[in-house]
Amino acid sequence: MRLVATVSNSEELKLAERADLIELRLDLGEFKEIPRGNFIVTCRRKSEGGLYDGEEEKRIEKMRFFAEKVNAELVDLEFDLPDRYFKEFNCKIIESYHNFKETPNYSFLKDLVESKRGDYFKIATLGKSEEDWRKIVKILLEYENVVAFLMGEKFSYTRIFSAYLGSPFIYCYVGTKKAPGQIELNDAAQILRLLGVRR
Amino acid sequence: MRLVATVSNSEELKLAERADLIELRLDLGEFKEIPRGNFIVTCRRKSEGGLYDGEEEKRIEKMRFFAEKVNAELVDLEFDLPDRYFKEFNCKIIESYHNFKETPNYSFLKDLVESKRGDYFKIATLGKSEEDWRKIVKILLEYENVVAFLMGEKFSYTRIFSAYLGSPFIYCYVGTKKAPGQIELNDAAQILRLLGVRR
Repeated sequence: MRLVATVSNSEELKLAERADLIELRLDLGEFKEIPRGNFIVTCRRKSEGGLYDGEEEKRIEKMRFFAEKVNAELVDLEFDLPDRYFKEFNCKIIESYHNFKETPNYSFLKDLVESKRGDYFKIATLGKSEEDWRKIVKILLEYENVVAFLMGEKFSYTRIFSAYLGSPFIYCYVGTKKAPGQIELNDAAQILRLLGVRR
Repeated sequence: MRLVATVSNSEELKLAERADLIELRLDLGEFKEIPRGNFIVTCRRKSEGGLYDGEEEKRIEKMRFFAEKVNAELVDLEFDLPDRYFKEFNCKIIESYHNFKETPNYSFLKDLVESKRGDYFKIATLGKSEEDWRKIVKILLEYENVVAFLMGEKFSYTRIFSAYLGSPFIYCYVGTKKAPGQIELNDAAQILRLLGVRR
């Protein structure tokens, strides 16, 4: 499992030194000087909780430019994008599904994961009940290379526990919170220390 | 979920003030003055990692005596005890299965839980791989009123995470560690605080 710091600008990059992987959110702010590191390049649309509101072709172009510039390890592409975009990047791909209204039923999630075109499939949905967590757990038990957790203040724990069921990344914030229930990078590291996982 | 402090003697009782429930381990030491509280009465045999090495009838008698004395909420009875002992207590019963060598396969665990005679079934087995944790998760997804986790230093996390799949008790230590991988009471409380569960 790796701790991912989601960052919105050059200032926040400085707070992310202890992260294993850094997600550059191109939709949230400007990045000027970028230090060496392992990066996920993401430019989230408004419909998925981001701030990007422009043309789709330009968004992909912006991501491609940054992915090359920082020699990105991963790029995040939404599940509803056409196949052609998945062939335009020279790095690994996280195919992502976000739902800020609810957690769909298990068979819907299963179909999503089975139609995966990237290297990883990411599911981030709004949690409303313990039952939603059980759906995510079942997905994680059944499939590899899936990043899955619930959004919502009451479901922060799912961000950590999913990593103990094979989910490879724990998305954390530095500076300002980027999604409901996100845990601060140092708090996440502290939890893992108390559980005996990290020093 | 409730934090349980496992205590071996009157001294350790003083360290357990912040616990929701206290497990009195009669096999580990002496209890003289016992404050008011919510208690689990346990007297573990050597074969299950305890120190009790005497006659079985006397062990049960000792537990019955203490359960009445402290007005116990729960008593812990091992899964291989005859039915008659399950009728001799005026409190709820945790029927327990311990295995310090391995985690048996899923169908073995499933059969154990399905033959439950107490109010809760407790499974505590030695973890060797991630696969062992997946067996426990499957049991927790399928059954209610099951306390289940893996023993072993690498599997401390299972003690906390099982509570997010319905396991009602998180067994912690105060003073000295009673089982491999047990988390100290204050550390467990700190983890829950960082996850936003407790104040």
